[in-house]
Amino acid sequence: MPDVAHAHDLKAQVQATRGAGRKLAGLTTEQRNRILVDAADAMERRSDEILAANQNDCDLALAAKIAQPLLKRLKTTSAGIAEMAMRVRDVAKLNDPLGHVLATTELDEGLVLEKVPCPLGVVAVIFESRPDAVPQVSSLAMKTGNGLVLKGGVEARHSNRVLVSIWRDALAAHDPALSDSICLLEDRAEVMQVLQMDREIDLVVPRGSTEFVNFVFRNSRIPVLGHGAGICHVYVDRAADLGMATAVVVDSKIQYPAACNAAEKVLVHREIAAAFLPQVVQALQSVHVEVRVDEECRRLCAGADLVPATEEDWSTEYSDLRITIKVVSCLDEAMDHIERYGSRHTEAIITRDSDAAARFMEQVDAASVFHNASTRFADGFRFGLGAEIGISNSKLHARGPVGLEGLLTYKYKLRGSGQLVADYVAGGRRFTHRKGK
Amino acid sequence: MPDVAHAHDLKAQVQATRGAGRKLAGLTTEQRNRILVDAADAMERRSDEILAANQNDCDLALAAKIAQPLLKRLKTTSAGIAEMAMRVRDVAKLNDPLGHVLATTELDEGLVLEKVPCPLGVVAVIFESRPDAVPQVSSLAMKTGNGLVLKGGVEARHSNRVLVSIWRDALAAHDPALSDSICLLEDRAEVMQVLQMDREIDLVVPRGSTEFVNFVFRNSRIPVLGHGAGICHVYVDRAADLGMATAVVVDSKIQYPAACNAAEKVLVHREIAAAFLPQVVQALQSVHVEVRVDEECRRLCAGADLVPATEEDWSTEYSDLRITIKVVSCLDEAMDHIERYGSRHTEAIITRDSDAAARFMEQVDAASVFHNASTRFADGFRFGLGAEIGISNSKLHARGPVGLEGLLTYKYKLRGSGQLVADYVAGGRRFTHRKGK
Repeated sequence: MPDVAHAHDLKAQVQATRGAGRKLAGLTTEQRNRILVDAADAMERRSDEILAANQNDCDLALAAKIAQPLLKRLKTTSAGIAEMAMRVRDVAKLNDPLGHVLATTELDEGLVLEKVPCPLGVVAVIFESRPDAVPQVSSLAMKTGNGLVLKGGVEARHSNRVLVSIWRDALAAHDPALSDSICLLEDRAEVMQVLQMDREIDLVVPRGSTEFVNFVFRNSRIPVLGHGAGICHVYVDRAADLGMATAVVVDSKIQYPAACNAAEKVLVHREIAAAFLPQVVQALQSVHVEVRVDEECRRLCAGADLVPATEEDWSTEYSDLRITIKVVSCLDEAMDHIERYGSRHTEAIITRDSDAAARFMEQVDAASVFHNASTRFADGFRFGLGAEIGISNSKLHARGPVGLEGLLTYKYKLRGSGQLVADYVAGGRRFTHRKGK
Repeated sequence: MPDVAHAHDLKAQVQATRGAGRKLAGLTTEQRNRILVDAADAMERRSDEILAANQNDCDLALAAKIAQPLLKRLKTTSAGIAEMAMRVRDVAKLNDPLGHVLATTELDEGLVLEKVPCPLGVVAVIFESRPDAVPQVSSLAMKTGNGLVLKGGVEARHSNRVLVSIWRDALAAHDPALSDSICLLEDRAEVMQVLQMDREIDLVVPRGSTEFVNFVFRNSRIPVLGHGAGICHVYVDRAADLGMATAVVVDSKIQYPAACNAAEKVLVHREIAAAFLPQVVQALQSVHVEVRVDEECRRLCAGADLVPATEEDWSTEYSDLRITIKVVSCLDEAMDHIERYGSRHTEAIITRDSDAAARFMEQVDAASVFHNASTRFADGFRFGLGAEIGISNSKLHARGPVGLEGLLTYKYKLRGSGQLVADYVAGGRRFTHRKGK
């Protein structure tokens, strides 16, 4: 078995990761990118080792009769490894998010304040069966000079061990003191301990089911980057192009129904409801979407096979081929409904009325607000962020799809020559507060 | 009594604040600044009313025998009101933090993504006796288009009622629907309820004792902006100018000992300890600072009246005329000590060695890292932020002294013409990801 460290003493382990991460942050951009490229090369060179470990995991998973979708996510191939390596090289090519100055203020002659980006410190990522999460988050964390604590699913443990050992080897080849920059935890019980380590770990990124993410939000003393439910709406305004609206609703629902940015509800303006509803219902049903509707909608689609919506439907994320439709009297009613039931993730308006679109985009409280586009565009790759550490439903720090900047904070550096606050308070000296760049 | 709304139905009250805040966010910069200036004018016009209410609070406080420093913070004067008004006008003069575009990306022809700043929504500020907190945080929240829930100390309730009514009047004069943008809570029991309202409130700012702030951190389901302990160090390097070091240590300690950015510990390099310690100890004692020391320090200052430090001293914030000094063997030992005991608030190095300073500022994990300057400079006003909503010990969202930007988040606006994700996945269309500005 490779030299992946196991956490006998969890706190010491995480502190070692913190220390190694600090060394990593001191490297140059070129050195950190070199580690990424070396790890990508090693993944391809050692692909037989990865595939054998992955086969082992898959065999055990089959024997344990795990669910088919889980097994599918677990399985990797030569092509899968090549893609993992390619994505790591892409991250190496991204601009360095460190090493520049965000703002400079001369507080007084010879007393200069700089605001500079810096790594968070240690990031813990807790993920489920996909082994490709290892190279993805490792590349993002190493690029940004952070220590990384990984906790993978037990069903992927052999694959994860090999992948983590490849990264630790690439770090060690640069400097043995760097190898602890990544550590892998395997014991599920350690998750609760990790969530209490608010002095050692700066950010937790849970990836998995809504239930799991909510569990982490409730139990963590550390800030969490993640999203619980994704209850996204498409509001079809009275000034909508109905053909466009139907196409956007269908794409938003079926393009990948399990995604958090899939549409779960459609709000339809009363003035176009009679014309629009039969058309959108037919389009959804023809691609096997179960359609739930409010009473008014049901009357307007008499004869169609529709399920009456209950109050619970409005706040339920289906993550499946199911959608609920409601008729509203105006834009404000649509926005009030979204304020009440939305998850502040992604909300779309379909309209030719630019004033209505502007009001919707201004007033709806969500990370992403779209005009005439599918909710499925809310994604770090599609947004052009280059890489995505996760999606955040929180408004603080990072919101919506989050790229490298989600793993950074900033610090203030002040350089003086012995200045004392007493002199400024007494009035002997005055602040100039001259802004640089 | 003025028309300050009392929270009989707390949730409905906060929801009204949320709705009014959304209307406020829709105003122009000029309109929001006008409300600030009107409120400042009204504070001066109604100063007799404020002073009478404040006298009432002070009389009750005297009768209740509250502590002298609390009474001092509670008391206001005509000059105090003029200063409050001036500070509100200063906030009105700051650049509008809203209304511009942070980044633009053309995802494809006719599909344009904008990242724009927007208000958080509703901010709750919980503060103690100082009534000047009302105009200060009101001006910051109204400037940034946020609803504001205020909970003041019971000892300042009459003063707070008048001040809040002045702000609500200024809002109502602009548009009656805006007056709920600020609400004042008076019942201590409501604090716990407020901390659970994570759907209605976006940020909690606790101001008060470390115990209170820590209580809020532990009990809030809402993100918290605040700081607990401030355990700041001054490290006096072997290459320090000893006169400068003494002056900076004294200023960092005594300029305002109760502040969170006051120095609590001094770390001294062994090579200069014998020369420096007697000098700094004498300087501190001459201004009535109790000096605690480690064993080595005590030997080097034989004859001085020094208290032996205990392990507990290293992690204790005195907020008083007391300081603890330790001898270290090198820069790394100093940094390790700070990593172990520091509160990541403000840390200073005194040295003529620019390499040592650079390493210290790079590697020490704190919001503010200073070279040859007093820790007391860590402050929003001194940093030139124009206004300060608080100081954050968290690394996420906002760190260190936090100005207007701490009350903002951002959203992504995507404008298209019916684009579907399926077309990009199938390869029929490709992303251009052309960056704007």
